[in-house]
Amino acid sequence: MRNITQHNVTDAVRKSFEAIDDTRLRFLIERLVTAVHGYARDTGLTHEEWRAALDFLNRAAAISNASRSEFTLLSDVLGLSSLVDLLAASPGATEGSVLGPFHSRGSPWVESGASLIKDNPGEPVLLRGRVTDTQGLPIPAATVDFWQNADNGLYWQLDSSQPQDNLRCQLRVQPDATFELMVIRPRPYMVPTDGPIGDLLRVSHRDAWRPAHYHVIVEAPGYRTLVTEIFDAEDPYVAQDAVFGVRESLVADFKPGNDPAVREKYQLAGAYRVVDCPVKLAPAA
Amino acid sequence: MRNITQHNVTDAVRKSFEAIDDTRLRFLIERLVTAVHGYARDTGLTHEEWRAALDFLNRAAAISNASRSEFTLLSDVLGLSSLVDLLAASPGATEGSVLGPFHSRGSPWVESGASLIKDNPGEPVLLRGRVTDTQGLPIPAATVDFWQNADNGLYWQLDSSQPQDNLRCQLRVQPDATFELMVIRPRPYMVPTDGPIGDLLRVSHRDAWRPAHYHVIVEAPGYRTLVTEIFDAEDPYVAQDAVFGVRESLVADFKPGNDPAVREKYQLAGAYRVVDCPVKLAPAA
Repeated sequence: MRNITQHNVTDAVRKSFEAIDDTRLRFLIERLVTAVHGYARDTGLTHEEWRAALDFLNRAAAISNASRSEFTLLSDVLGLSSLVDLLAASPGATEGSVLGPFHSRGSPWVESGASLIKDNPGEPVLLRGRVTDTQGLPIPAATVDFWQNADNGLYWQLDSSQPQDNLRCQLRVQPDATFELMVIRPRPYMVPTDGPIGDLLRVSHRDAWRPAHYHVIVEAPGYRTLVTEIFDAEDPYVAQDAVFGVRESLVADFKPGNDPAVREKYQLAGAYRVVDCPVKLAPAA
Repeated sequence: MRNITQHNVTDAVRKSFEAIDDTRLRFLIERLVTAVHGYARDTGLTHEEWRAALDFLNRAAAISNASRSEFTLLSDVLGLSSLVDLLAASPGATEGSVLGPFHSRGSPWVESGASLIKDNPGEPVLLRGRVTDTQGLPIPAATVDFWQNADNGLYWQLDSSQPQDNLRCQLRVQPDATFELMVIRPRPYMVPTDGPIGDLLRVSHRDAWRPAHYHVIVEAPGYRTLVTEIFDAEDPYVAQDAVFGVRESLVADFKPGNDPAVREKYQLAGAYRVVDCPVKLAPAA
């Protein structure tokens, strides 16, 4: 340690973490050191490049705050968030997709059958589903956390023209494990491009669009929590999601609906769309 | 891209960066994607671990500001900063060492032979050197950027009791390429431990001490800029630097000095120390 050289530095750093008590954390940090040092060696990373990388992270820090994490977005555009979702997949269960930066705990509780439309413009959509295990058996204890963007493409957190908690809710499924919500058709939108991630996307000639989607988190005691999205099959960006979140099984048809009973229940003036969203949860590990 | 799977996601992400014009940047990003995805796959990174990592980065962002980068510190305690220095080493030139978080541009210019002691308590040290090329030929156009901590272990930026720019300066070497400064003996100090890096060090049972050192940046037209440190051979932490910056060639003896001419020139009441700091610069690439 008094004579750190190019040849012994990686071992010295690994050794410095050997006393971590938690076996898994020790493994994760040891691999992190190996990966980071391997990257610098393989690429012959220069001072200027290292400084540019730190400048990138410092700019990411400066633009982040309690309701915006440029680091989550970095993980998203590098496909890491998506990869972690995919690695967590359980055979037979609904696929997961990225959580995104607009979820926060504490959405208002509503009953299944509620309408979130209120004063929102946009095409009405009846979102309905049933939560089962991978064998198809109903899970009546399941809860659904739902959020989507408004017709102008913005989530309520970033848009002072929307009421607080606009277009988000939590609900308990019905005794038969079904649920139903009247919502609006989601809109494609761009991830924020005013920070360093925006620079990265521009220099890569990548666009910042995310195809229109709903977010849901489905939880039930004894089952793995599902964090996923439901995409609109007709969206122009469904095959080029900036954050690599689309899976074929999560692309839904927004079918035309015009049932007078539904129109009356939700006080709709005209036609609407129907999205079926069956959810299968895997057992907890 | 409409059906991202565990098997195609890494290729899809790599492809998304293929249009980067700059060849080197494209290579660096492609390798970054490979390394990040490889890490997640090799470790079987879970959602909870990924969220913990993002929480770590978000906490690092929250505690960073214009004069403190928790990201630089992360690079330091992971040995990455040191590795980048070591990879940049030029045969025959003075070895580099970590820049650290306390450098900023625009230190006051002084003449060689100046004293930075002013009202600082601490043991006086005559720091002297000569800037040459790797053949030993003098480089009279060289400039030296110098900074150190005060006798209480703190750099002026973090200590409102110190005057602005305390114990830092820039100078041009003399026509014979020598330089001399009267400074104080530096102190060991702890890197900041009130952020997530402090948590990492604690969970690793690592201490946060850096051995006492001076910082210098030496620059001259036509030569590679040298960013380095000079360590005190008698420091108790010289063999366990928290940021892996010590190299044997940068450890200096703080020799006793008592030359009446030096004492008179610098108005010293008593003895002092002498540190010789020969600097060899490599030619620019």
